[in-house]
Amino acid sequence: SSASTPIRATLFPGDGIGPEIAESVKQVFREADVPIEWEEHYVGTEIDPRTQSFLTWESLESVRKNGVGLKGPMATPIGKGHRSLNLTLRKELNLYANVRPCYSLPGYKTRYDNVDLITIRENTEGEYSGLEHQVVRGVVESLKIITRQASLRVAEYAFHYAKAHGRERVSAIHKANIMQKTDGLFLKCCREVAEKYPEIKYEEVVIDNCCMMLVKNPALFDVLVMPNLYGDIISDLCAGLIGGLGLTPSCNIGEGGIALAEAVHGSAPDIAGKNLANPTALLLSAVTMLRHLELHDKADRIQNAILSTIAEGKFRTADLGGSSSTSDFTQAIVDHL
Amino acid sequence: SSASTPIRATLFPGDGIGPEIAESVKQVFREADVPIEWEEHYVGTEIDPRTQSFLTWESLESVRKNGVGLKGPMATPIGKGHRSLNLTLRKELNLYANVRPCYSLPGYKTRYDNVDLITIRENTEGEYSGLEHQVVRGVVESLKIITRQASLRVAEYAFHYAKAHGRERVSAIHKANIMQKTDGLFLKCCREVAEKYPEIKYEEVVIDNCCMMLVKNPALFDVLVMPNLYGDIISDLCAGLIGGLGLTPSCNIGEGGIALAEAVHGSAPDIAGKNLANPTALLLSAVTMLRHLELHDKADRIQNAILSTIAEGKFRTADLGGSSSTSDFTQAIVDHL
Ligand SMILES: CC(C)[C@H](C(=O)O)[C@@H](O)C(=O)O
Ligand SMILES: CC(C)[C@H](C(=O)O)[C@@H](O)C(=O)O
Repeated sequence: SSASTPIRATLFPGDGIGPEIAESVKQVFREADVPIEWEEHYVGTEIDPRTQSFLTWESLESVRKNGVGLKGPMATPIGKGHRSLNLTLRKELNLYANVRPCYSLPGYKTRYDNVDLITIRENTEGEYSGLEHQVVRGVVESLKIITRQASLRVAEYAFHYAKAHGRERVSAIHKANIMQKTDGLFLKCCREVAEKYPEIKYEEVVIDNCCMMLVKNPALFDVLVMPNLYGDIISDLCAGLIGGLGLTPSCNIGEGGIALAEAVHGSAPDIAGKNLANPTALLLSAVTMLRHLELHDKADRIQNAILSTIAEGKFRTADLGGSSSTSDFTQAIVDHL
Repeated sequence: SSASTPIRATLFPGDGIGPEIAESVKQVFREADVPIEWEEHYVGTEIDPRTQSFLTWESLESVRKNGVGLKGPMATPIGKGHRSLNLTLRKELNLYANVRPCYSLPGYKTRYDNVDLITIRENTEGEYSGLEHQVVRGVVESLKIITRQASLRVAEYAFHYAKAHGRERVSAIHKANIMQKTDGLFLKCCREVAEKYPEIKYEEVVIDNCCMMLVKNPALFDVLVMPNLYGDIISDLCAGLIGGLGLTPSCNIGEGGIALAEAVHGSAPDIAGKNLANPTALLLSAVTMLRHLELHDKADRIQNAILSTIAEGKFRTADLGGSSSTSDFTQAIVDHL
């Protein structure tokens, strides 16, 4: 990927604060001379007046064709009769692994120092099957589906990631003492893959115990791989350790090497359009996209500028206790490039 | 309950360190003149040579008859073909609510101060249905069952508890944005009960967000009520905030007012029989049993002695960074009575 032929990447700014923080990414990328040309599409919970749709076929095709994309927050309306757009994207693009690095930001103090965790979440099945029904009045059931194929696939991804990033250990998180068949199958697949990576340590940790240990001493863990819902829970817990979802990047990996990076925080409708939102999670997610494209120099440069700006502490948005606007914070990052 | 006619209570010392920490409870109760006569039964993962059983009918009957009991840890063998004894007890005794108070222990420093949380867990259904099967080779499913009856019952218990203990708020923890039918029914039941308690604030929090907020600021919560697996996860997370399962009491409430208090930590076979175990969780659980019996004076006296001993810090077991034996720590508590 040479600097002269720009790489096309899809951009879904999303709902609420999405457009503002996407603007911030565009500005930083521009100033850092990142050779990316954005292909912007509206995907969100409002019907787009231009397309009369909240998710067009063209939006999906754009990611499939480009292979990389970045998405802002999309609201999940509870009980509005349509499925979460986040889930729809995961399903349509077969985004099977969700990777969330979670590390302490220098200069931004929380109760925990030196957190450095990677959660890798199976992103397509488990408790998110969507299969639910009423058995009789007052008795409902949901199906959790675990397949060998999806479990092997995410386990492969986790070990591959651990090896490629010089990580020491993969912990498979489960509740196989209760769900012996489903979580049991997940573990069996992890064990099979672990055997192919003798240089990576492998362990299995029950989810309740994992949460207790993460809270007591996050340094006990390194890379964590798990079924869908546990990944949802544990990745948020880990984000909490370093300050919250406003600070953590996330990247979804799909079949055929697709990467859709995303900010996993909410769309914050209360502050939308007010130039108050913190673009850090989307910016750091955009950095993971650059790494996926092997544009490590650009990735390092931008990541350093973001981290230095936060560490310096002069420009911080309200969620981090500061009073900077989105655009002032973004400008400070640009100045650090 | 007068001091002259002793109250009979069942005692299951359990596996591993169970007998030692049960001994500690017996000694403290004796020294505090608690009018309880223990009816001791072996329940555990080894076959008892006397009864040729790991769980006799008499053991269950003892709890049913006495209405109160205390249990030590019981190992859950993974994949040994029989169900966890913990689950068997919950099922046989219809222990529908598991209550875990979680508060910072004065003088025992963790990253969090002034934690004061109550988790109330539905204890009979949900992801613990035991219903699992292989659909085809490589595809397995588990059923999560939520019923109106069990959800109302635990919600009632939670609001009743909140009111009786002067608590302000009940938060129902769920993932109804994904499991709309099952968690949706759970929430519906909580809302119904909430209406009968206008003096108690009610809110609903998605489990991933709840974990993030607990880690960032546990003071945001008060009483939490939730389906089985979320309760398993969140109660361990909360325990982690104040130092771990070795320090947190737990009590199971069953139909007809049965209360079976229990230490929820493991049986620690590695240190069993070595006079090294920390009896705090079992002692504090025994205190919740006394409160259930309305023996508040005794409960206060014993609880204060336990907390003062830990606060003083002269006698602490190894898990708390000290070097005291179980019996020295117990003696110190007795001296504080
Ligand atoms: C919004 C919601 C459907 C989603 C999930 O549960 O996966 C979110 O929590 C996430 O982690 O991306
Ligand atoms: C041992 C295990 C079966 C049990 C559970 O999952 O309920 C334990 O974690 C608990 O919380 O009591």
